[in-house]
Parts: sequence; structure tokens; C-alpha cells
Amino acid sequence: MVEKAFQDYYPDNFSYCYGCGRLNEHGYQIKSYWQGDESVCVYQPEAYHIAVPGFVYGGLIASLIDCHGTGTAAAAAYRAEGRLMDSQPPLRYVTACLHVDYLKPTPLGSPLELHGRLIEIKGRKVKVAIELWARGEVCARGEVIAVKIPENMMV
Amino acid sequence: MVEKAFQDYYPDNFSYCYGCGRLNEHGYQIKSYWQGDESVCVYQPEAYHIAVPGFVYGGLIASLIDCHGTGTAAAAAYRAEGRLMDSQPPLRYVTACLHVDYLKPTPLGSPLELHGRLIEIKGRKVKVAIELWARGEVCARGEVIAVKIPENMMV
Repeated sequence: MVEKAFQDYYPDNFSYCYGCGRLNEHGYQIKSYWQGDESVCVYQPEAYHIAVPGFVYGGLIASLIDCHGTGTAAAAAYRAEGRLMDSQPPLRYVTACLHVDYLKPTPLGSPLELHGRLIEIKGRKVKVAIELWARGEVCARGEVIAVKIPENMMV
Repeated sequence: MVEKAFQDYYPDNFSYCYGCGRLNEHGYQIKSYWQGDESVCVYQPEAYHIAVPGFVYGGLIASLIDCHGTGTAAAAAYRAEGRLMDSQPPLRYVTACLHVDYLKPTPLGSPLELHGRLIEIKGRKVKVAIELWARGEVCARGEVIAVKIPENMMV
């Protein structure tokens, strides 16, 4: 049995996100999974995802942290409620606040590995910390504050 | 005479950035200009740059803030030194720290307008504040701390 990624549980109408929607054929289609208490996502940048030749584009790094962060927020919220991710109603989160510290240039050519950790759940808000690793080193550190999707974004 | 964008002054080897490189044919190729003391960039997202249908992808917003931020940092550094942007040696900046507050869902379909403002220049660091507008409203607010590009990113 192949484990389903967090994003594979998103309802179809929430699956067009450029970063993490499985139905957005132009996008990154990232996949996040639990590994114990950490969420993990592996992504292989394209050759053109560069800042300068040889190094990964910071905007891609921010995007991966963002989407892995909201995915982790949703998965953590289901866990906190003792619910499976395919139970109803669906819990979907959007980013209220994104912070990224670029610790060192991220080398292009190897997979990027994101590790997420729940910091806290408080009402509609979930705070998640993310590390982005490349070739055995932490290259960026991020924090995402996700909130339950507002009514005016539901279609 | 058509005014050159900040990014059009970048040396060729710094012009492959996915967000702002004029030589990256896959990327956003954003263009930033001074309007008095503000830097301005207008960008039209693609139909697939969405978070959920009807609203712009947050990772794109972070990317635009990032690249308009480093562009503004460079342009402000030239100004502070009383130098033209085509004078030698070139000043190039990378992002050390990116912060984005998503104030409201950003509607898709109209151009996004980014307004940058220099906060401070201190040694190798330049801090810039950015507002992202859509349809007459500020939808996101960002801050970029840019640093002079480190030697190990020069190729």
C-alpha cells in the first residue's frame, strides 16, 4: 500500500494551488508526509529554478516552505482533532504570515528536503517551523503561520 | 527614450534568476523602476498562478516581493553611493531574510503592483519594505533584508 501525501487528501476544489495542487499541471505538485512527528517533503528543482547559476532560486524555497507549511498545518490540525485526513468537513489552511531566513546558498542539482514541525495550534491559527536541507546541510529555515481558509476564498 | 529597469542593468551572469533575470526564459522576468523615492514593479500573473481558483498563489507573491526587494536594494545602494547602475563594479544583492504578511486574498485577473521603499542601508545589508497592491488594495506587505552577494555565489 502506498501512503497518500497530505495534498492527495485535499478536496478537488482546493487542489489547484500552484505549489501543492495535484490538479495544477503547471505547478510544483509537492507531496508531504509524516515521519513520526515531523512532516517531510522532497522536491527536485528544475535546472531553471536558479538565483544565479548553480544555486536554487529563493522564491522557490519560499514557495516550498509556504506549501509544505500549510500542508503540515492541515495535517497537524486533523491529528489534533483525532481525525483522519479524509474525514469531513475538510480542514484547509492558507498562509497569513511567511518568514524565511536564507542561511546559505542552496546548491542546485540534488533534491531539497523539507522538514516541518508543529509549533502550536491556537484557534484558527497553526504555527509551523520548517527546515530546508540540501546535501546534508540546512540551507534555509522558515516559519509559517497558517489560518483556516476564510469564507471569501471558498468557491 | 525608454527607461531601463533595474534588472536590465544586471550583468549577464546575474541575469538568470527565475524571478528577475532577463535571460531566464522560463522565469517571471520582473521589471522594477524608480518613481521618486519608491520602486515600482507591475506583474500580471498567469491563469495558473493560483492558490485556490480566483486568487493569486502566495508563493508567487513571496517571489515577487523577494526579487523586487533585492532589485530595490541594489538600486538604492547605487543611489546611496551616487553611482549610476551601469557603473563598475556591479552591486548585486541576495536575500538573507524574507517576511511576508498576507493581509487579504489577492484577486487574480488584474496586474499586481509592488511598491518598494528603502528602510536602511548598513554596511553590506539593505532593508526594504514592499507593498503588493491589487485592484486598489494592499493585499500583502513584505520586508526583505538583502546582503551583498557572497563570494561563494559568484561564478
